[in-house]
Amino acid sequence: MSGIWVVGVGPGDRDGMTGRALAALAEADILCGYTAYIDLVAGLFPDKPVIATGMTREAERCAAALRAASEGKKVAVVCSGDPGVYGMAGLVLELAAAFPPLNIEVVPGVSAALSGAALLGAPLMHDFAVVSLSDLLTPWETIEKRLRAAAEADFVLCLYNPASKKRRDHLARACDIVMECRAAATACGWVRNVGRAGSGSGALTLAELRGWRADMFSTVFIGSAATRIVNGKLLTPRGYRTTGENTGEAMQQ
Amino acid sequence: MSGIWVVGVGPGDRDGMTGRALAALAEADILCGYTAYIDLVAGLFPDKPVIATGMTREAERCAAALRAASEGKKVAVVCSGDPGVYGMAGLVLELAAAFPPLNIEVVPGVSAALSGAALLGAPLMHDFAVVSLSDLLTPWETIEKRLRAAAEADFVLCLYNPASKKRRDHLARACDIVMECRAAATACGWVRNVGRAGSGSGALTLAELRGWRADMFSTVFIGSAATRIVNGKLLTPRGYRTTGENTGEAMQQ
Repeated sequence: MSGIWVVGVGPGDRDGMTGRALAALAEADILCGYTAYIDLVAGLFPDKPVIATGMTREAERCAAALRAASEGKKVAVVCSGDPGVYGMAGLVLELAAAFPPLNIEVVPGVSAALSGAALLGAPLMHDFAVVSLSDLLTPWETIEKRLRAAAEADFVLCLYNPASKKRRDHLARACDIVMECRAAATACGWVRNVGRAGSGSGALTLAELRGWRADMFSTVFIGSAATRIVNGKLLTPRGYRTTGENTGEAMQQ
Repeated sequence: MSGIWVVGVGPGDRDGMTGRALAALAEADILCGYTAYIDLVAGLFPDKPVIATGMTREAERCAAALRAASEGKKVAVVCSGDPGVYGMAGLVLELAAAFPPLNIEVVPGVSAALSGAALLGAPLMHDFAVVSLSDLLTPWETIEKRLRAAAEADFVLCLYNPASKKRRDHLARACDIVMECRAAATACGWVRNVGRAGSGSGALTLAELRGWRADMFSTVFIGSAATRIVNGKLLTPRGYRTTGENTGEAMQQ
């Protein structure tokens, strides 16, 4: 059956993919995606045709995938992390309105927020907010408003796109906003290139994070007032007492 | 090498697990977890010993896992979804301080927020906040404050634990708070039992969600002002123009 899978491949290594993601890639006639993400998976399927375009061609790439699907192909649109978190799922669904009805399935993956948190410890154990610091598609005023609201309500923050070549100071500006209502000693963390060559992570304070040199491949975490560093791990307690308690119900994860 | 993997198994079916999660379960000497989550995976490894306890014994269960690891066993603590999102990762790391140094690795999985969003379409394409409506470990005033802050700053909201037997009205109260600053017609969605028997999902308005009968196995999504329903799918546009644009940089997912 023709159609499109919008596939999240997680951090990038094969073991970080779900069985469903691998199966979709294997069954697809064509792999489609940003060149760097295609490179992550093309080695697993060296004989598959690919539609790979540079990073500035999102709509063009999704439209090409939709055209191929409407011609009867099975197409996998490849995204790093999760396709529904700043990925291609939305654009594919949006552009699909201009095509005849197609089967479109979003295959979720482990997002950078989750893979990064796991490397650092457990910073996202309590309520958290995910904010992209890229102002290419969002006015900076909106980003500031969200950072301030999340900081005031003591959410843990996970920041995507903390910097690029053109935007060196966004992370520092974000830290300044959070420091309006959170201590400079707040426990924070950074990760870089999770699941790929050159991966790294570390815990540091909010004041230190302000001066940290982020790049396009990093994700950063700002703890809530409760977050702390335990044995080098970043940890936001959920509120469980550490002696035998009864919470009386299951929790979703 | 002995130690603990805190493993996220995603929605619950084998195909929703990452290769790394499956490998950890396969290599473990003992599987440990809440009975219902152990049941999700025990069928894959019928001969493994298990430490399974009811839903009210989180600390007891994690301590048993740590004891077994400190006696030289390889233990997999099994969580549905992601272990770092309202899961056991934090509690294991916290309790580990009372034991000799152990190898502890958090193996991330596809959280309910991500698997639910994928079923509904692409609601989390822009900045979002994740809030648990359970007030067992968090004062309700804190939950209200976070809901209000997230609503005012136009975050998409993903709500965990929208109801339990004891808390039938939390979702309605949450919707009322969001409706203070967001239209009753705001596009929303619900999912239930993702990846398991009896799974379902649907799009509806915020006013309809207010009266929707949530249970312990459901997760709900409240759209931002930009979220809409397109071909039955819940979609928050990222802001890409749908004709060939240049954004000039890659986005993380």
